[in-house]
Amino acid sequence: MGRSLGSDLRRLLPDGRVLDAVEDRTLYAYDGTSAKALPEAVVTVRSPQEVVTVLRYASAHDVPVVPRGAGSGLSGGSVPALGGIALVVAGLRAIKEIDSGSMLVVCEPGVVTGDLQKAVEAAGMFYPPDPASLNYCTIGGNVAENAGGPRAVKYGVTKDYVLGLEVALASGDIVRLGGKQVKNVTGYNLVQLFVGSEGTLGVITEVILRLLPKPAAKKTMLAIFDRLDDAAETVAAVMAGGVLPTTLEIMDKTSINCVEDYLKLGLPRDAEAFLLIEVDGMPAAVEAEAGVIAGICQERRVQSFQMARDQKEADTLWRARRAVSPAISQVRRAKIGEDISVPRSAIPAMVREIQRISREQDLPIAIFGHAGDGNLHPNILADRRDPVEMVRVEHAIAAIFEASVRLGGTLSGEHGIGLSKQPFLRLALSPEAVALMQSVKRAVDPKGILNPGKIFGKA
Amino acid sequence: MGRSLGSDLRRLLPDGRVLDAVEDRTLYAYDGTSAKALPEAVVTVRSPQEVVTVLRYASAHDVPVVPRGAGSGLSGGSVPALGGIALVVAGLRAIKEIDSGSMLVVCEPGVVTGDLQKAVEAAGMFYPPDPASLNYCTIGGNVAENAGGPRAVKYGVTKDYVLGLEVALASGDIVRLGGKQVKNVTGYNLVQLFVGSEGTLGVITEVILRLLPKPAAKKTMLAIFDRLDDAAETVAAVMAGGVLPTTLEIMDKTSINCVEDYLKLGLPRDAEAFLLIEVDGMPAAVEAEAGVIAGICQERRVQSFQMARDQKEADTLWRARRAVSPAISQVRRAKIGEDISVPRSAIPAMVREIQRISREQDLPIAIFGHAGDGNLHPNILADRRDPVEMVRVEHAIAAIFEASVRLGGTLSGEHGIGLSKQPFLRLALSPEAVALMQSVKRAVDPKGILNPGKIFGKA
Repeated sequence: MGRSLGSDLRRLLPDGRVLDAVEDRTLYAYDGTSAKALPEAVVTVRSPQEVVTVLRYASAHDVPVVPRGAGSGLSGGSVPALGGIALVVAGLRAIKEIDSGSMLVVCEPGVVTGDLQKAVEAAGMFYPPDPASLNYCTIGGNVAENAGGPRAVKYGVTKDYVLGLEVALASGDIVRLGGKQVKNVTGYNLVQLFVGSEGTLGVITEVILRLLPKPAAKKTMLAIFDRLDDAAETVAAVMAGGVLPTTLEIMDKTSINCVEDYLKLGLPRDAEAFLLIEVDGMPAAVEAEAGVIAGICQERRVQSFQMARDQKEADTLWRARRAVSPAISQVRRAKIGEDISVPRSAIPAMVREIQRISREQDLPIAIFGHAGDGNLHPNILADRRDPVEMVRVEHAIAAIFEASVRLGGTLSGEHGIGLSKQPFLRLALSPEAVALMQSVKRAVDPKGILNPGKIFGKA
Repeated sequence: MGRSLGSDLRRLLPDGRVLDAVEDRTLYAYDGTSAKALPEAVVTVRSPQEVVTVLRYASAHDVPVVPRGAGSGLSGGSVPALGGIALVVAGLRAIKEIDSGSMLVVCEPGVVTGDLQKAVEAAGMFYPPDPASLNYCTIGGNVAENAGGPRAVKYGVTKDYVLGLEVALASGDIVRLGGKQVKNVTGYNLVQLFVGSEGTLGVITEVILRLLPKPAAKKTMLAIFDRLDDAAETVAAVMAGGVLPTTLEIMDKTSINCVEDYLKLGLPRDAEAFLLIEVDGMPAAVEAEAGVIAGICQERRVQSFQMARDQKEADTLWRARRAVSPAISQVRRAKIGEDISVPRSAIPAMVREIQRISREQDLPIAIFGHAGDGNLHPNILADRRDPVEMVRVEHAIAAIFEASVRLGGTLSGEHGIGLSKQPFLRLALSPEAVALMQSVKRAVDPKGILNPGKIFGKA
């Protein structure tokens, strides 16, 4: 390479920040996908100023910088595809301010989402986004990927809570965008440009998140349907009944059977759909809403309906849903999880398309996800050691994305494009839309040093 | 000028689209502010393709294009500051699709907001944003300015409902951004870049809006406080009590007295604050939430508290709040309305700052607005014919913005920057943030033909 990136960075940063031994770099070559690529150096920053130092250096020397939180992303976003510097911000983990008067929290990007939730709940407030990885993923990663979660039906996703950001640009300039105001139309909404930009536009160094009053009560229900269409009609009827559930999760027959194989809970193997439904809010409202939902389920030929009387029973109802990921991991050697998002009314059609693809490619595909907002996670169960099977997996993935777009959907609801979905980007976006996004990228990061090779590919 | 803009455009467009007589152009020189500037030509388009035709021409000839809906904006956004073409999209007013299964509506930009609300409510759904101008303003204008309204406390503002946009770029290219998915992280969130961009980045030709279940019940309350601090503490306590009201409006003593002068309702002239509070949702929830709020008001030394038993009584409680604008218009010859947004806990301090400024500049300033989200509308009451007084008005405006920023607030919560607030933009945003916004503007509209002179000034 000519230069020694590690020694250059060591001269600029305090002791212990720079790692460039192969065994260290290997730890930062991965995320939650199967993609891997070694960074040339790893920097574990301890302050926004160190982020600036790294970016100034990288900008001057055209070195790729790949921001990284917990490395738990599901689209390859923090994999250093083109080498360069893995910039680890997980050490920036201060919760700087919890303001109950204005109902907001100011924190650094490395704060673990679950820790932030506990801290604000201790102050009587509520941060709704709840990605499955909340016990280890970071707020910075959630913002960069616009993470969702089961509570998104009622409460929306990460973007709906980000009021302000401090971002270090590729140039090393630090900008503050948005602020502590709930309503703000002062200039362009660049906060939302950075949310979900997958580390390609800047490095987040501070986040201001809006909070809500903590709901006083919650009610969990499990409805099992023999027929998928009855479940889908139930989802539509619940919404039409004036109830916006907190959570409305679906599991298909394959998921149900994988869980039954794994846990032997006595689940009905012939059921086509489980719906796990939660409502929250004032106790009286929760009772009323749960009653409406119970009534709608009964009218829609529910096979069985259970309503939890307490948190312990609620945990029991969640057990099957929580076990889906480990259960399907047992079936074959690998699960390839996708993250399509369709208009809500297209869910039954999308499930049937995936079932067709499963038959055509002779691959089990378990489907679960967030029926309340149309975001489904089809998981293809395969054996990575079998190259012929992996070709069928590729065909299945392409067919799933094609079906999603055909039904008015898109490639990703909450995981991002990263590396995994980039071959399909132009299926979902027109050439004009991609060109517009790339022109914005060039305006914000003219040298293209930030997370190169992501979203758009190398073009 | 050399060229004749009107005759050029007439050649390109169907009969009747182009107006360039002075008396016609005069009708498109205004918006809801006192700013005015004549366009050189007016085009009233009837299709997105005609928008494209105008933009291609304007791009080729470097002619400013100022998109315009109903022209009811409150920051000069649709005033053709640098001449050029007033591009009137108010005629594009089709509601193309109301989808109750996916809970969304697809419409053209010229649809009047109130008409859209009625149409979706007839289908059992709910479009929450409710700007005061909803009986004449358009969805396109709401999107371009990111309009808010009283229901924003619980439901958010226009941006929180825009799922997808079709936008004609300065080049004439049409791009579709977002779509019918509630969750979408496929590429950058350019939907939110265009929302609130005040016509400076593109011309909106289609909007996809998310809808909610229509709340079954509503409850309206009016609480009158002798002391502003008691009112502010009540706001904080309501939220801390786990209740998120739909609406939480405040009126200060000056507003109360203006309304009393105007309508003689018998309002208490010594009261420092009215709080108008609404909750909505399931009937049982609404009862429970109203009960919590009533209890909190009683604990906070409320002078009087009324709860409406039906819609007629609710209308009575709203009467004073709805009369504020006409009432204060009676006091002096002009009202100069601002739109600051502060962290919610800064409301009492901000109100006191405005009262100080009112005394210092010897100008009555009525304050009303959305206490639930920190968005206040101080209205300076003045006589535009008195040049000395208007200098004091300028001082008062500057002092209000300075106080807002000092208290962690910003220049505008729901009206935009446009022309009116642009002298103060750099008070709220750092040079780096402004430069970043301008680099995005150049990337999207390289020739700067779209609504030039807005937000950033002529620089």
